[in-house]
Amino acid sequence: MKYINGGVCAARGFKANGIYCGIRRNRSKRDLALIFSETPASAAAVYTTNLVKGAPLTVTKRHLENGKAQAVICNSGNANTCNADGIEIAEKMSELAGNALGIDPCDVIVASTGVIGQPLDLSPVAAKMAELVSGLSGEGGGFAAEAIMTTDTRRKEAAVEFTAGGKVCRMGGMAKGSGMIHPNMATMLVFLTTDAAITPEMLRSALSGDVADTFNMISVDGDTSTNDMVAVMANGMAGNAEIASKGPDFDAFREALRSLTVKLCREIAGDGEGATKLLECSVSGAPDKETAKTVAKSVICSSLLKAAMFGADANWGRVLCAIGYSGAAVDPGKIDVAFSSAAGRVDVCAGGAGVPFSEEEAKKILSESEIGILVDLNSGDAAASAWGCDLTYDYVKINGDYRT
Amino acid sequence: MKYINGGVCAARGFKANGIYCGIRRNRSKRDLALIFSETPASAAAVYTTNLVKGAPLTVTKRHLENGKAQAVICNSGNANTCNADGIEIAEKMSELAGNALGIDPCDVIVASTGVIGQPLDLSPVAAKMAELVSGLSGEGGGFAAEAIMTTDTRRKEAAVEFTAGGKVCRMGGMAKGSGMIHPNMATMLVFLTTDAAITPEMLRSALSGDVADTFNMISVDGDTSTNDMVAVMANGMAGNAEIASKGPDFDAFREALRSLTVKLCREIAGDGEGATKLLECSVSGAPDKETAKTVAKSVICSSLLKAAMFGADANWGRVLCAIGYSGAAVDPGKIDVAFSSAAGRVDVCAGGAGVPFSEEEAKKILSESEIGILVDLNSGDAAASAWGCDLTYDYVKINGDYRT
Repeated sequence: MKYINGGVCAARGFKANGIYCGIRRNRSKRDLALIFSETPASAAAVYTTNLVKGAPLTVTKRHLENGKAQAVICNSGNANTCNADGIEIAEKMSELAGNALGIDPCDVIVASTGVIGQPLDLSPVAAKMAELVSGLSGEGGGFAAEAIMTTDTRRKEAAVEFTAGGKVCRMGGMAKGSGMIHPNMATMLVFLTTDAAITPEMLRSALSGDVADTFNMISVDGDTSTNDMVAVMANGMAGNAEIASKGPDFDAFREALRSLTVKLCREIAGDGEGATKLLECSVSGAPDKETAKTVAKSVICSSLLKAAMFGADANWGRVLCAIGYSGAAVDPGKIDVAFSSAAGRVDVCAGGAGVPFSEEEAKKILSESEIGILVDLNSGDAAASAWGCDLTYDYVKINGDYRT
Repeated sequence: MKYINGGVCAARGFKANGIYCGIRRNRSKRDLALIFSETPASAAAVYTTNLVKGAPLTVTKRHLENGKAQAVICNSGNANTCNADGIEIAEKMSELAGNALGIDPCDVIVASTGVIGQPLDLSPVAAKMAELVSGLSGEGGGFAAEAIMTTDTRRKEAAVEFTAGGKVCRMGGMAKGSGMIHPNMATMLVFLTTDAAITPEMLRSALSGDVADTFNMISVDGDTSTNDMVAVMANGMAGNAEIASKGPDFDAFREALRSLTVKLCREIAGDGEGATKLLECSVSGAPDKETAKTVAKSVICSSLLKAAMFGADANWGRVLCAIGYSGAAVDPGKIDVAFSSAAGRVDVCAGGAGVPFSEEEAKKILSESEIGILVDLNSGDAAASAWGCDLTYDYVKINGDYRT
């Protein structure tokens, strides 16, 4: 397995495009993305657990019942959520894409992201669909990744190459953050493509097993979006024997998927709204995986710790505090805490009590752009990681007046 | 029942004082508070559910096992938490106060608030204890309220007068916020005093019944402190027949307690770190009380909504979103939302979908300093309120570098 360049077009047979169609007022920002597979693909998705669900999710879920898809259409600027005609609009959007591509509208994955509760007018989508389709190309992944951005400051793409059944397979993806990020049993907008051959059932199994440890372990602001979705299409063009059961090929597939999703997780967390730093909390020594995950996520979610990291302040008491209210059954008297970064590592707490450390050294370490928060519970062998970002003035600025 | 002036000295027989002793570096801020009852009092307290508990809580819990107390000693500037010698230090602090007051150290409630994980040196407390005690007076409640402040911008006091057993009783209190405020089955530092006669058992029952609907329904930042505590002393000097069971007197006591604690809740939430606005989310039409509470608290805790309120942005989609991920079983299609303030009321969502409203009017309403977020679930008769504040640049500023 190795990382390669590219995104959703890294795998064979996938084309993409992203254009400005007019949903947003800002003409300099693309707002409509399309991904297309030359051949029908196995497909699977996981969705937000928010009871208030974007209408596109309901439609996509229906379209993926047969485990097949061939395209993704996604707009930014409007979430098509909490609108009376949302379902109808999402169906219509699939139809516009399906008809222009010459495929069954039921083989289209549809998604929307942006403001909640404002009717989505499809006339800009209808007017520009021909242009969107005619511009599809193997080099269009970057345009598509830009078109799904909301408050993201940069596009998020990643790709990997791996071997399954003796064939070289590729897998790529794109993602968008960057606020309302606190997935729970589902995640933000992520579209993955692969040329590996795999059955819909095994694809679904691989995806749902993966997100529990990756996209569900990110938090930007504790708000779980109404429109979170991770969808994957596998078109089989790598020519490997179809992965239809557990075994070495499935393991290789899962390993590639994990490498890809962890990279996208770090991209999403590091580009959280207003973020200046990526935070990664690594918990070890837990009695079981659930405890490790609960502790890691609680630390990553603490507003107080996030603000301290912004200020490069080694306020480890806030780490202990967040562990204490996490709900996990831990012994505070056994906890060790350290901070790390490219500039080094500093131990700040041992056995639940402070240890002397150089404030100057700590400041240097916490001034880097990627910070590790290392927690050892000293109570077992299980481990987990969670990703987040610091809390900054700009988070407040971005969210104080998002709609206008 | 009526509100009266004053705080912890409003009830007969209570004296207080607050001085600068030297725990803080800033000499202009009082850091040591004392409350004293002329006679032994029934006493009760509730504590944080954080597994990482401040040492003073452990000591206070032990001291209140017999349901009696006569004094409160509390310092700010250092939480005496996550220190190897914490328990010993908290016991020693009770002793210093008890000896100076001529009472059993076990009748002292001890508390600390401030930075976690830094050893608490008691020499400033020992050196100034005589001064603290000699300055006790019926006018010292304000000084005590100032001495427990951390990042609070103003002292928080309230008092009420009520009748029990034909006698006029008084009850007063002081509180401190203003970050790490997200109590769960307990609360931040609140000290209440009353001259009503009531048994320790009934006092405990009244207090624990009250906090579930008041202090546990506040959130500033989602962080549950290690040192949260609400303690109450009742010295009986009003001369009413001791309240020893349920009945009209107990009801009057509870009503007075509720009025007092709701006022302090609003004070704490409105003075949350960096806050410019008090937010009150009132949920009605819920199938049961728990649902109403869950929904109200989820809305109040949403970072995205809090930032929108700072910007006076009527982004009601974030209210729906927070209800959707609250974990409460609600029907999104039945939810109505409105915003209100002294400037009026604007309905923004009906039956889960947006309704047209004047942005100008909404801006005017949301520019006030106290904002109501009114949610009707249209699914029953239960209701609940939660209190919080907006998320501002200053929250980040205050918490980006708290220790230095």
